[in-house]
Amino acid sequence: MRICVIGAGPSGLAQLRAFQAAREKGDEIPEIVCYEKQPDWGGLWRYDWRTGVDEYANPVHGSMYRYLWTNGPKEGLEFADYTFDEHFGKAIASYPPRAVLFDYIEGRIKKAGVRDWIRFSTVVRDVSFDGASGLFTVIARNGETDTESAEDFDHVIVASGHFSFPNVPYYPGFEGFNGRILHAHDFRDAREFEGRDLLILGTSYSAEDVGSQCWKYGAKSITVAHRTAPMGYDWPQNWAEVPALEKVDGKTATFRDGTTKKVDAIILCTGYKHHFPFLGDDLRLKTANRLAASDLYKGVVYTGNPRLFYLGMQDQWFTFNMFDAQAWWVRDCILGRISLPDAADMADDWTQRQTDEDAVADDHDAIVYQGDYVKELIAETDYPSFNVDGATEAFFEWKKHKKKAIMAFRDNGYVSPMTGTMAPPHHTPWRHALDDSLDAYLQTGSEAAE
Amino acid sequence: MRICVIGAGPSGLAQLRAFQAAREKGDEIPEIVCYEKQPDWGGLWRYDWRTGVDEYANPVHGSMYRYLWTNGPKEGLEFADYTFDEHFGKAIASYPPRAVLFDYIEGRIKKAGVRDWIRFSTVVRDVSFDGASGLFTVIARNGETDTESAEDFDHVIVASGHFSFPNVPYYPGFEGFNGRILHAHDFRDAREFEGRDLLILGTSYSAEDVGSQCWKYGAKSITVAHRTAPMGYDWPQNWAEVPALEKVDGKTATFRDGTTKKVDAIILCTGYKHHFPFLGDDLRLKTANRLAASDLYKGVVYTGNPRLFYLGMQDQWFTFNMFDAQAWWVRDCILGRISLPDAADMADDWTQRQTDEDAVADDHDAIVYQGDYVKELIAETDYPSFNVDGATEAFFEWKKHKKKAIMAFRDNGYVSPMTGTMAPPHHTPWRHALDDSLDAYLQTGSEAAE
Repeated sequence: MRICVIGAGPSGLAQLRAFQAAREKGDEIPEIVCYEKQPDWGGLWRYDWRTGVDEYANPVHGSMYRYLWTNGPKEGLEFADYTFDEHFGKAIASYPPRAVLFDYIEGRIKKAGVRDWIRFSTVVRDVSFDGASGLFTVIARNGETDTESAEDFDHVIVASGHFSFPNVPYYPGFEGFNGRILHAHDFRDAREFEGRDLLILGTSYSAEDVGSQCWKYGAKSITVAHRTAPMGYDWPQNWAEVPALEKVDGKTATFRDGTTKKVDAIILCTGYKHHFPFLGDDLRLKTANRLAASDLYKGVVYTGNPRLFYLGMQDQWFTFNMFDAQAWWVRDCILGRISLPDAADMADDWTQRQTDEDAVADDHDAIVYQGDYVKELIAETDYPSFNVDGATEAFFEWKKHKKKAIMAFRDNGYVSPMTGTMAPPHHTPWRHALDDSLDAYLQTGSEAAE
Repeated sequence: MRICVIGAGPSGLAQLRAFQAAREKGDEIPEIVCYEKQPDWGGLWRYDWRTGVDEYANPVHGSMYRYLWTNGPKEGLEFADYTFDEHFGKAIASYPPRAVLFDYIEGRIKKAGVRDWIRFSTVVRDVSFDGASGLFTVIARNGETDTESAEDFDHVIVASGHFSFPNVPYYPGFEGFNGRILHAHDFRDAREFEGRDLLILGTSYSAEDVGSQCWKYGAKSITVAHRTAPMGYDWPQNWAEVPALEKVDGKTATFRDGTTKKVDAIILCTGYKHHFPFLGDDLRLKTANRLAASDLYKGVVYTGNPRLFYLGMQDQWFTFNMFDAQAWWVRDCILGRISLPDAADMADDWTQRQTDEDAVADDHDAIVYQGDYVKELIAETDYPSFNVDGATEAFFEWKKHKKKAIMAFRDNGYVSPMTGTMAPPHHTPWRHALDDSLDAYLQTGSEAAE
């Protein structure tokens, strides 16, 4: 049996670790080939200075920007089989910058010793399924050698993420705007916008965090336009929330209430698409970005062809440990430890999940809803059981801290649901911590003060 | 018989016009389907404000920027079957801005009445060849409907261009640069860089023209780094040519001679790749950007599978009328009016062309070389014969004018090789003509002065 995993980011790596964990326990596991478009692992947590297309002319995967610190507490995403305490050998603060998270992700997978399962700089160009043989043929292109391979697999697991292909709306006048228009996907270094007037479209995490970065690194003003409602945080004095953009003319943006603002750049924080350019319609997931994705039994089995799996395609409160829960479950399904019901029951599963999601009243309940999903999957495999309610508790606290002080919420700490460790405060408040390197972050307070 | 044309830019449209011209003369022509990724025709001459990926998450085709005026005389690219005089009803100046060229391209194809042959917003995802049936299967995705089609064709003509997938080199420190790094492919509005210090890498047309645009629209300084030799034009006072970039640190660029310069943005004018993400290795052209492309008999027939053609894959002095010459020739090949020699002779053809090209001494001779190629193709079809030497003459003059005054060469005029018309001077010198619209350009001198 041969298994194809597409992507070596947090989801794909969880899948490799899931199989390796079984092998470690003495189980026989299938041959696994993981195709990774980027030259290294880590998915979105790998920083890429490139925008547009990469060195092999494929769309750049990365949406990561410089100076990013996690926008939710690390206690919500901790691996149950590899804790922050284990990796860093000490307790660290709750909102680490990118380099710290990357190091943590890498720590677990290095320990697993499965790097040679991955074919780097290799983009999947096509996946097709042959009903007669029951096999998938995966055509992939190695950018380094500029050659193509075609190999057959019993199962394909799509773990390519859904925060790489931007959703980019048009507004009247964009074709004549006298500045830069970019999607958050192409945002890299906030210092580009030092001293500049910025317009941000959107009200979700990208808008909030890209705006906060630009503010922290010296943008002159931040104007955020919303289509439905403002984010409503207690913003700094040079930050304004305004109604939806109507048009731009030269450098002047006009909003739905008739007010105008001269801006130097427009950053579209308008979300991402579930996009799988390597799949035909028969295998291609089509879903909105929601907690219960369409056409996925248990959130992972593609009902159109149950030999095909998708990881991490949900909208996310939980991340790394939810991907783990999914990966362990998919592994056990492939190993025959879990059997699938018939097609009708699989369809009932995801439609019922969507009905339940639609009944969710607010963010609090949405967090509980996704926590329950994680619990459900974990209960069916040997993924280390953990205090999911402890993680949801960290999320609840986080929401409160944001409400209280949007530019200071990262100065708080939470209790690990894995180890019970209370995170120490960081040595420097987030807004004054301009150096986001691993070394700077891991210093103790007294070292940092020197 | 069914023919697939990939791309509705100048090359693809030339192919549609070639077939339509035969039908106009009473010939029977095959069914033609043209797939165009963009929502409109014109290829690179369609301005797209987007960068990165388009509205359907495919890499943006356009490398066009605002305020672009042709960087060579229009007399070198004029259609032999549809002159500038015919289209505009009067003589116009020699270096029209984009909108004027687009209008001209559109004028001919509208007159041909073949818009319904084109499937817009439809990207080709895969082309495969079945040796048994002798047919190509083309899988394409319509972005608007988000659905895929698979259709068979007797011939495929790849006319997707080779100035859409940037070649993007890495330099030490790029991952830490405190400003914007972009390839010329993503350059849009020069006013973004008003008052800024720019570093440009490269010495070819993009470097020269992107730099000139930024200078014209108010950049503070232009620094151009070259790896082999400077361009050597008589640049303005705030324009410097320096040795190759060695590294960047923060905002400071260090060059090979040890000098440094603080810059706000880095524009990589480092060329493009021949890239065909929809083709496997058996059908994929691999060639350097040169006058005699590899593996193409007569510059158009793919020797790896002579039912497959490529248009416009050469490095270019000649453009529109060379694409025409190729399209007419390919048409006649498909219609059986021209027969192909055996494989060995086809291989001899392109290798001999490369040997001849390698013997070319300078730009002057390269222009003659490509002019001879155009003459050769035209002589074998009914494409209207024209004064190719007149076009080369315009190129020679253009080179001299650039040498004389790089920021004023566009103020000159040349004789049409089609009509013998002498182009009138434009009403405003290029460097003062900030409005690049069709209307502004077509005004007479007295209207413009009002």
